[in-house]
Amino acid sequence: MQNTRISIITIGNELINGQRIDTNSVWLCRRLSEIGFDVAEKFAVGDDIKDINECLDFAAAKSGVILITGGLGPTDDDITREAVAEFCGVELQFNQELFNAMSEYFKLRCINMADKNRCQSFLPATATALANSCGTAPGFMIAKHDVKIFAMPGVPSEMKAMFESGVVPQLQSLINGKIVVCRKLKCICIRESSRAEKIGDIMQRGQNPLVNCTVSNSVITLYIVAQAKTEQAAFEIADDTVGRLNKLLGEYVFASGEQELVDVIARRLLEKSHKLATAESCTGGLIAKMLTDVAGSSGFFEYGWVTYSNEAKISQLGVSRQLLNEQGAVCADVVRQMATGALKQARSDYAIAISGIAGPTGGSDEKPVGLVYIAVCDKNRCVVEEKMYPAGRDIFRIRTTTAALDCLRRNFL
Amino acid sequence: MQNTRISIITIGNELINGQRIDTNSVWLCRRLSEIGFDVAEKFAVGDDIKDINECLDFAAAKSGVILITGGLGPTDDDITREAVAEFCGVELQFNQELFNAMSEYFKLRCINMADKNRCQSFLPATATALANSCGTAPGFMIAKHDVKIFAMPGVPSEMKAMFESGVVPQLQSLINGKIVVCRKLKCICIRESSRAEKIGDIMQRGQNPLVNCTVSNSVITLYIVAQAKTEQAAFEIADDTVGRLNKLLGEYVFASGEQELVDVIARRLLEKSHKLATAESCTGGLIAKMLTDVAGSSGFFEYGWVTYSNEAKISQLGVSRQLLNEQGAVCADVVRQMATGALKQARSDYAIAISGIAGPTGGSDEKPVGLVYIAVCDKNRCVVEEKMYPAGRDIFRIRTTTAALDCLRRNFL
Repeated sequence: MQNTRISIITIGNELINGQRIDTNSVWLCRRLSEIGFDVAEKFAVGDDIKDINECLDFAAAKSGVILITGGLGPTDDDITREAVAEFCGVELQFNQELFNAMSEYFKLRCINMADKNRCQSFLPATATALANSCGTAPGFMIAKHDVKIFAMPGVPSEMKAMFESGVVPQLQSLINGKIVVCRKLKCICIRESSRAEKIGDIMQRGQNPLVNCTVSNSVITLYIVAQAKTEQAAFEIADDTVGRLNKLLGEYVFASGEQELVDVIARRLLEKSHKLATAESCTGGLIAKMLTDVAGSSGFFEYGWVTYSNEAKISQLGVSRQLLNEQGAVCADVVRQMATGALKQARSDYAIAISGIAGPTGGSDEKPVGLVYIAVCDKNRCVVEEKMYPAGRDIFRIRTTTAALDCLRRNFL
Repeated sequence: MQNTRISIITIGNELINGQRIDTNSVWLCRRLSEIGFDVAEKFAVGDDIKDINECLDFAAAKSGVILITGGLGPTDDDITREAVAEFCGVELQFNQELFNAMSEYFKLRCINMADKNRCQSFLPATATALANSCGTAPGFMIAKHDVKIFAMPGVPSEMKAMFESGVVPQLQSLINGKIVVCRKLKCICIRESSRAEKIGDIMQRGQNPLVNCTVSNSVITLYIVAQAKTEQAAFEIADDTVGRLNKLLGEYVFASGEQELVDVIARRLLEKSHKLATAESCTGGLIAKMLTDVAGSSGFFEYGWVTYSNEAKISQLGVSRQLLNEQGAVCADVVRQMATGALKQARSDYAIAISGIAGPTGGSDEKPVGLVYIAVCDKNRCVVEEKMYPAGRDIFRIRTTTAALDCLRRNFL
């Protein structure tokens, strides 16, 4: 049986001199565990043929699959092609098809292709190219004895696209008999310990399904990984646990699968043909940015204001000057007026408004850094929430955005 | 002479199943390069004695120093002590001093020490303990032949404190005389490869200084790493190359050091006490979001509009309905009107406006997905740029934002 243990090698001087955090291998590890593969270990090496070769040797001794990222660009320090060719004992070969595809890529963008890029059309002789749908650097796949080696670019978007389209199908053809499936549940972070304790039992190790979780930006993602002889049996095992988790977590669950909170909001708004407007102070456009991350967002989003100063709140949204003078910009009444002002101006069905103190400065004893007011309204009512997120400017802004979108979801959609 | 190449091994299942991003090794790499050490490579392995031992073997063959983080806690999966003892061919030994120090630690905090913690008082027989000033897990130092191994806890605060107090002095005693310094230059990317041709010679391997680069979001960061006997001499070597690079890259260089493009914009606006307004269509608030990522952005940013629909462009920014009907929203005249409309409404010194086709849909033969118009104006003039970024919605939006901010920087600040 094929050895399906996997080693990951990330290549680049920037990875071992502390200049860059390697997120590629983290993403790969997560995706691999979702589709049922064990990662034996990860390496990071510099742009050095000897070091790369030694790592390949070491990895090939224990793993049946080696995934490489990085070092496929057009510059002199990009030597992954050479290193893998040497490891496999083959020459680099010019590939006319790759060259044509790359020429086309540049032509489409009205850019003269630099001579340097020509080196990207060379591959180890026995390798098969993996198409790069997002950039110029092609990846490749090559075998040495029983070990399959996949080389992908270091640019995360390019690597991810290539992994999904070119590598996953190859990996899946390597497993025989054991089917692993993964369901996901996403919920808003809850502090209620009784719920957390109940989930605790479900998350104990050594069970089938195995339940893992990650927490990011106030969102918990639960991974329910089940194994069985058939896909159907595996899904049945997973779905039983998904049902239990759904019951325990209730309204805090906002999605199963890949959807982000903003995708759920987008889908519900589009289904209803309803429009949402935003009026942001401390989040500074982040909510609008997240809504418009969604392709097709023009179907539900037309108007957003970033009213960072009091004058902007007054002139653009009709917030009362007296109210601002008396209570300041960070209070329930101001966000309420911002939301209703935005709703009216945009003639939208819903509006979200935010005002708070992101920090690091601008706080007081009465209104400390981290305090934020969120208002969500439709034409009949306005829900206002007060939150406290004193964990630094970036986290404050992200948590506020999540809380605001979730307030809309739970109360109006 | 002592081999001072360093390998780093991070230990923990959470590092190879995608649950955790390893920041420890990034921090260590940066600190090591600051104090003049080369990292040969990094490994991440799970909590498995055999895997750890194989990594130690591999690392010991090329490096004179091995730094380990993680696996020193009190739970069953913490097996670094056992693994290193086995690798060095020695037994674990109870250390009464460590046990006393740990008992004291718990006593001070009025916590009953759990039996589990007792295992943390065991060390490989020939090891020397490294004190943990921030927690219970002691580290240790041990030698196998010429290779020095340092084991530190995985908790970042504990690891950092132990590295500085217990490891750095040991490392410094290994070097004789070599000082390493690093300068950075950041510049806007036209095409990586055309730039690479200009600066290719400077980036060749095996030189002093060594020049590396990373590319992210249309920004190239160049690292100029120089070595010499004294710090002053090393900086002289680095600065000479910085000067050459500055000359070659000209106005595309926007910062030296840690500053991002948006920080440079913020600083220049604050220095002049000038205000910037934004009027965004396809970037959907991303520019406002990036500007307000900067702490203190209320000093230069007050008004932002996300005018995603034509109606919003007309009602909020005064764009001509006739123009929109005749030419559509994506054209030079519309962004010009958006920018001047925002400037007027906000009474700001500069305004940025964006209109384009982020995709994936909405393109046509005449105006394909990826086409974007950028306008930047002050009260005297308006600069309009047409760009083509057909690399997917996210990258389109990021590149457009970088291009718009850079257009402001080059033409107005």
